[in-house]
Amino acid sequence: MILVIKKGTPEEEIRRISHELQESWNIKPETVVGRHHVIIGAIGDTATLDPMRLQEISPWIERVLRVEKPFKRASREYYHGQASEVIVLTPNGAVSFGEHHPVVTIAGPCAVENEEMIVRTAQRVKAAGAKFLRGGAYKPRTSPYAFQGHGESALEMLWQARQATGLGIVTEVMDTSDIERVAEVADIVQIGARNMQNFTLLKKVGTQSKPVLLKRGLAATIDDWLMAAEYILASGNPNVILCERGIRTFDRQYTRNTLDLSAIPVLRSLTHLPIAIDPSHGTGISAFVPTMSKAAIVAGTDALVIEVHPTPAQALSDGPQSLTLEQFDYLSREMEIISQAINRHEQLVPVLI
Amino acid sequence: MILVIKKGTPEEEIRRISHELQESWNIKPETVVGRHHVIIGAIGDTATLDPMRLQEISPWIERVLRVEKPFKRASREYYHGQASEVIVLTPNGAVSFGEHHPVVTIAGPCAVENEEMIVRTAQRVKAAGAKFLRGGAYKPRTSPYAFQGHGESALEMLWQARQATGLGIVTEVMDTSDIERVAEVADIVQIGARNMQNFTLLKKVGTQSKPVLLKRGLAATIDDWLMAAEYILASGNPNVILCERGIRTFDRQYTRNTLDLSAIPVLRSLTHLPIAIDPSHGTGISAFVPTMSKAAIVAGTDALVIEVHPTPAQALSDGPQSLTLEQFDYLSREMEIISQAINRHEQLVPVLI
Amino acid sequence: MILVIKKGTPEEEIRRISHELQESWNIKPETVVGRHHVIIGAIGDTATLDPMRLQEISPWIERVLRVEKPFKRASREYYHGQASEVIVLTPNGAVSFGEHHPVVTIAGPCAVENEEMIVRTAQRVKAAGAKFLRGGAYKPRTSPYAFQGHGESALEMLWQARQATGLGIVTEVMDTSDIERVAEVADIVQIGARNMQNFTLLKKVGTQSKPVLLKRGLAATIDDWLMAAEYILASGNPNVILCERGIRTFDRQYTRNTLDLSAIPVLRSLTHLPIAIDPSHGTGISAFVPTMSKAAIVAGTDALVIEVHPTPAQALSDGPQSLTLEQFDYLSREMEIISQAINRHEQLVPVLI
Amino acid sequence: MILVIKKGTPEEEIRRISHELQESWNIKPETVVGRHHVIIGAIGDTATLDPMRLQEISPWIERVLRVEKPFKRASREYYHGQASEVIVLTPNGAVSFGEHHPVVTIAGPCAVENEEMIVRTAQRVKAAGAKFLRGGAYKPRTSPYAFQGHGESALEMLWQARQATGLGIVTEVMDTSDIERVAEVADIVQIGARNMQNFTLLKKVGTQSKPVLLKRGLAATIDDWLMAAEYILASGNPNVILCERGIRTFDRQYTRNTLDLSAIPVLRSLTHLPIAIDPSHGTGISAFVPTMSKAAIVAGTDALVIEVHPTPAQALSDGPQSLTLEQFDYLSREMEIISQAINRHEQLVPVLI
Repeated sequence: MILVIKKGTPEEEIRRISHELQESWNIKPETVVGRHHVIIGAIGDTATLDPMRLQEISPWIERVLRVEKPFKRASREYYHGQASEVIVLTPNGAVSFGEHHPVVTIAGPCAVENEEMIVRTAQRVKAAGAKFLRGGAYKPRTSPYAFQGHGESALEMLWQARQATGLGIVTEVMDTSDIERVAEVADIVQIGARNMQNFTLLKKVGTQSKPVLLKRGLAATIDDWLMAAEYILASGNPNVILCERGIRTFDRQYTRNTLDLSAIPVLRSLTHLPIAIDPSHGTGISAFVPTMSKAAIVAGTDALVIEVHPTPAQALSDGPQSLTLEQFDYLSREMEIISQAINRHEQLVPVLI
Repeated sequence: MILVIKKGTPEEEIRRISHELQESWNIKPETVVGRHHVIIGAIGDTATLDPMRLQEISPWIERVLRVEKPFKRASREYYHGQASEVIVLTPNGAVSFGEHHPVVTIAGPCAVENEEMIVRTAQRVKAAGAKFLRGGAYKPRTSPYAFQGHGESALEMLWQARQATGLGIVTEVMDTSDIERVAEVADIVQIGARNMQNFTLLKKVGTQSKPVLLKRGLAATIDDWLMAAEYILASGNPNVILCERGIRTFDRQYTRNTLDLSAIPVLRSLTHLPIAIDPSHGTGISAFVPTMSKAAIVAGTDALVIEVHPTPAQALSDGPQSLTLEQFDYLSREMEIISQAINRHEQLVPVLI
Repeated sequence: MILVIKKGTPEEEIRRISHELQESWNIKPETVVGRHHVIIGAIGDTATLDPMRLQEISPWIERVLRVEKPFKRASREYYHGQASEVIVLTPNGAVSFGEHHPVVTIAGPCAVENEEMIVRTAQRVKAAGAKFLRGGAYKPRTSPYAFQGHGESALEMLWQARQATGLGIVTEVMDTSDIERVAEVADIVQIGARNMQNFTLLKKVGTQSKPVLLKRGLAATIDDWLMAAEYILASGNPNVILCERGIRTFDRQYTRNTLDLSAIPVLRSLTHLPIAIDPSHGTGISAFVPTMSKAAIVAGTDALVIEVHPTPAQALSDGPQSLTLEQFDYLSREMEIISQAINRHEQLVPVLI
Repeated sequence: MILVIKKGTPEEEIRRISHELQESWNIKPETVVGRHHVIIGAIGDTATLDPMRLQEISPWIERVLRVEKPFKRASREYYHGQASEVIVLTPNGAVSFGEHHPVVTIAGPCAVENEEMIVRTAQRVKAAGAKFLRGGAYKPRTSPYAFQGHGESALEMLWQARQATGLGIVTEVMDTSDIERVAEVADIVQIGARNMQNFTLLKKVGTQSKPVLLKRGLAATIDDWLMAAEYILASGNPNVILCERGIRTFDRQYTRNTLDLSAIPVLRSLTHLPIAIDPSHGTGISAFVPTMSKAAIVAGTDALVIEVHPTPAQALSDGPQSLTLEQFDYLSREMEIISQAINRHEQLVPVLI
């Protein structure tokens, strides 16, 4: 931390601040006298300190500037500058998410509607190359009058689809009281964008063992997001996959959100955790999903989360952003070409990009 | 709803769409043929329909425009164009929140730290005119390493402060499993900004009887926010107070958030629910709190939520945005002058503004 | 400036950076060795330096943190911590804008439509207490097909209104080639939000003598805005009034922009320049203008810019945000009450707030 | 246009509105009576009408919904659903921008610093495959104290670089009075993000013949941007290339702006105009430029604008976002591989994506 002291601060006050840093905070202060300002470098283990609390030591402190990142376990340094990998055991075998692995596809409907549709979708997306089936049992919906998901019975249907295809299951948990139930079926537990800062939920998924797909909140900064991951990691679960799904900006006319693909290289430089992109929620328009999926691969994503529905027109939720089974087949082939071009397809040789 | 049909749509398809609206959706279609577009007016009870699902009826539908508001119980029409009031029974008597009542002040520290500080704060803010004591037992903190609140024991301290002063208690609930415990102590249960779309939590606070202070999410539109209120109302609890606490914008250098005071007249025109303003979180800087509190009164707020701490410099959270007890005393007198100028003080005669 | 050096930087490189700071930039470096980072305090006249250029001295520099504000002439320190005032000579006498003066009202239509309407409006707003008439001759319109203003002939009409009423004239200049013509008629030259970073235009209005009303850009940070003012000040014109007119946020359904009233106390702490609020563009809805005007006064604004039109329904631009003459009369009386409550009305005794 | 009439509107008023639409606006009204609302479909050439003016016909009009796009010449329909192409004659031959052409690279320094550096950079970027040299003569800088560009003498240096290499020149014009001078040297005239709504400038570049690269404003919606293009097209210049360069969002810590790659497929569906991406300003960080450049190609961009500087550390502006010559060489080869994978390289066969 760096404390910028106001102009005209009495020397005695600067001494007092330095003293308090040392005594109350166990921080070694180093004072630098500039032409206009005095600054105090706070030396010590300050990464997890709240800059606002330091600021309150004295009204003569103009600002406290953080030098170190607020996250620790999520940081790339924590993994010695390397990428970590999240390995998920599915009936079809282990699937690895990470910088040095092929791009993993997670596909399926927004909500699980009935067993027939979910099993059929699972079979088709598996044939096209997906490793995981996504599908909501508990659905966060803006309106209390909208379909809220089939809940427990949908979990049962996902289980049937898992048995039938061997695909891993990714499904959302919305409340601490459902975690156990969801984690019984899910191979990866999803935390949705609207719960990204539901800290009680984060702590609880951090104490169970299933990997967590953590979606970015609509207005979450990169730091907010990594701090949410830090909650899970600090609670003991090291398997977190970060999923960008579009942020909220001033322009919402032609896309539901703004898909922030530059988050991929930014995260790569900050964290060791694997990264996923959800172009379906990111754009909200199925016609834009193929383009953005392929762009995401080239931007370096480790996984894609794509909504697929056998008959989007009849979907109980999020129809307009779902691909048909045929569109997903076609996209899968295109993604294969792109992955090969950047040497990141299944038969992986050293990564080029 | 209005369906805008694409140019060049075959007449047969328009007939098919109209047919489906009638058969599957029980909507009476009225077709208007424009120079470039055909539009279909969808007549019926469409307020709670999802426009996206209608769009999926045909790929020839260009857009679906919503005419009616998505919320119903929260709408001003639902209350026949009038304001509703939320009456809270505190040990000191009933306190009414609403357009035709004096502005209610809720004051206290961000977090409950110990019994002595919370009781002392309660006594002082009561003396200055506050009707409610706020204080966090469960604290949503960005960092897992920051102070998370004293939890249950803090609830006990709030109870002591309530006994000692007769003030009503406002405190946050963060998880469904804590609702019962919190509602035992709280006179008003708070849902924080980060949980505004924690729909499971909204449903559950809607099934208990304590009034709810619903904070606006950082990136919540007015519609999102009213739909969150709608969740609580639809679950059976009619006592919701909406609390604006700053939204997230591109400029975060000098204020933590952007306090959206124009939300007050906007909400007034849309909903019957009472409105509160939290200038402490709204600006994040204690020096700006008095100015924005007084402006909020003139803008028409029904209540203010203000952070006050006996020694902000030692606060365990959010120190820099807390007023001292003396600053709050002074502000209370200034607010009284402003309230009188707009005829909205305690001895209430008809409201002028 | 503070340079944060990356972990693991060789000592020799730190010495090289320090050397270069001294030799090429005339900055005295002070090195502080922390547990994880080395930081270098850059001592000297760094206010107008570009932090990005310092960063490029070495790839080992992690970040450059600015300690000093990027603006100088606009800063409150430049005026020794006091507010400055802008005095405008109108036919009716001198009008002062500033913290220690009554709130000045600028009123009139969005666009000048014809001489009769502009003279009539001028007479009415004068009678209600306005000191200035606003009205666009050159109109920035989103669409090339929308009314673009009557240009030079509108300037002539403004001149007639000035003669008829003695009110000062505020009108916008959109291009360097029109400045001379506009400044002949205008008592205050307005720079619109969309031209706030038209730096050539800023420089040119800085070389003429009429005061400048500088509107905040739709996505301008406080710093961007003060730097735009700095362009005018640095070019020699000390008379700049800052006008907040709403910023662009994610919610644009019920208001055109989000009026940022907290900008008033923020600016007060940063700059000596007078501040104006434009609630008409800020909300875009005439029904919200009275509430926000009064709130702005309490928030400390020095001036208000309000759209008034004799028949808003027939306005050639921005009708829905204009008050009628009668509404403006009524609002003026309400504003008077509020101004008196905070001791900031015409017969000014020491300011209370 | 669709007019939504308020509940409870007297039938007579509805008749009056209909009458006025017909008489004053030459619009044929079609009334649809819904359960809660009456709507009036406004049939006629309403594309260039301002919805706000219609709203003012009566206070009983709740909302006016636009059915048609506000832009005409920029719309894809205007080109019969096809993409247009912009062909630029450079000394090395004609270069085509458009959906059915190879991706064009425009590279060079932010600002022209001296003849030696600009010629050397031109030679190197040409060798790597660039078709155009970019370089600022007039520089829009946030600070009046920052380097403002060498102006006219920089134009002369660009001319030398053009002579030496045969590359086309792209350079910015900031003021109407400079257009002629800039257009003498430039093969493509650039309008910067901060001038995107400098309507006087747009009109003037629309009356000259050089193609225009129109950057998106920091807070410009897609509609705002296409309307800015419409200004140029309506003034007579059909050669406009749209350039996305990052929008301003709430998160500005790790990237200067948020590069909106989904704008590419959105624009593709709305307009026939060619599209360019500027990942240098879009991210503000040179380390992220290669990734985002390649992703942009896959997302469908027709051109890339990339900052390259022989010695970024000594750049007079925007150093940290510039690639070195070597980095640009390497990126060019990577972009070639990506372009081939999507069949969009120089030896163009039918486009696949």
